[in-house]
Amino acid sequence: MSGHSHEVEEGLAFLPKFDAAGLVTCVATDAASGDVLMVAHMNDEALRKTIATGEAWYFSRSRNALWRKGETSGQTQRVVEIRTDCDQDALWLRVEQIGAACHTGRRSCFYRKVEPEGGIATLVFVDAERLFDPGDVYKE
Amino acid sequence: MSGHSHEVEEGLAFLPKFDAAGLVTCVATDAASGDVLMVAHMNDEALRKTIATGEAWYFSRSRNALWRKGETSGQTQRVVEIRTDCDQDALWLRVEQIGAACHTGRRSCFYRKVEPEGGIATLVFVDAERLFDPGDVYKE
Repeated sequence: MSGHSHEVEEGLAFLPKFDAAGLVTCVATDAASGDVLMVAHMNDEALRKTIATGEAWYFSRSRNALWRKGETSGQTQRVVEIRTDCDQDALWLRVEQIGAACHTGRRSCFYRKVEPEGGIATLVFVDAERLFDPGDVYKE
Repeated sequence: MSGHSHEVEEGLAFLPKFDAAGLVTCVATDAASGDVLMVAHMNDEALRKTIATGEAWYFSRSRNALWRKGETSGQTQRVVEIRTDCDQDALWLRVEQIGAACHTGRRSCFYRKVEPEGGIATLVFVDAERLFDPGDVYKE
């Protein structure tokens, strides 16, 4: 397996590998249930603020802005544990999610499963009840 | 929340949003424990093969090649469920992992946690025992 750095994979130095856009991929899971709540990104500043405050900060690619999770909705994430993967280009956050992680008002962003149906895959809603009405929460 | 497509977020059509490199981000979790095993990527072909075969296929960015998980190591992933997120640019695979998901021989790629220590974050190994010796498995 060429191209793997021993220091990055086996060392104790935290060396997050930001991509060309300056981001690492983050997976947030519910510390209690293990469910995946969301996949998002952090830049260096979001990561520093997350570590310093114990609350999840991300970087929104669509809004091109640093973002404290729940700053508008109140649906914050308290970080229980952060892990990094072998090549340190992804982070796993185990969090205590207040309310809903998804901007659609659902607990998790992953509220639809992929169902193969005769060669064509379609979606089926699952665990999709809304905990809040996004129309009430996000007023612009 | 401008920029969100109702069809993408609330529809039943599976419309995976591949990035500029033709990839979607995939999170594989252990269907039994809920632990995150790995974060990887799929191109359209990997996704089609995964759905068709019920085994996880990915696209390796470092090797620039389609890759059946476990094709060298034997550590395959049987897919229990695939979910897509609100904007359909990420997939969550719940899998039955044979042996170790990580090329380092560990069950999960996330075998180190980030430990804040006086402003500097360091890593601590956790759940890091090796299930195989990568030197035996990956001979080049």
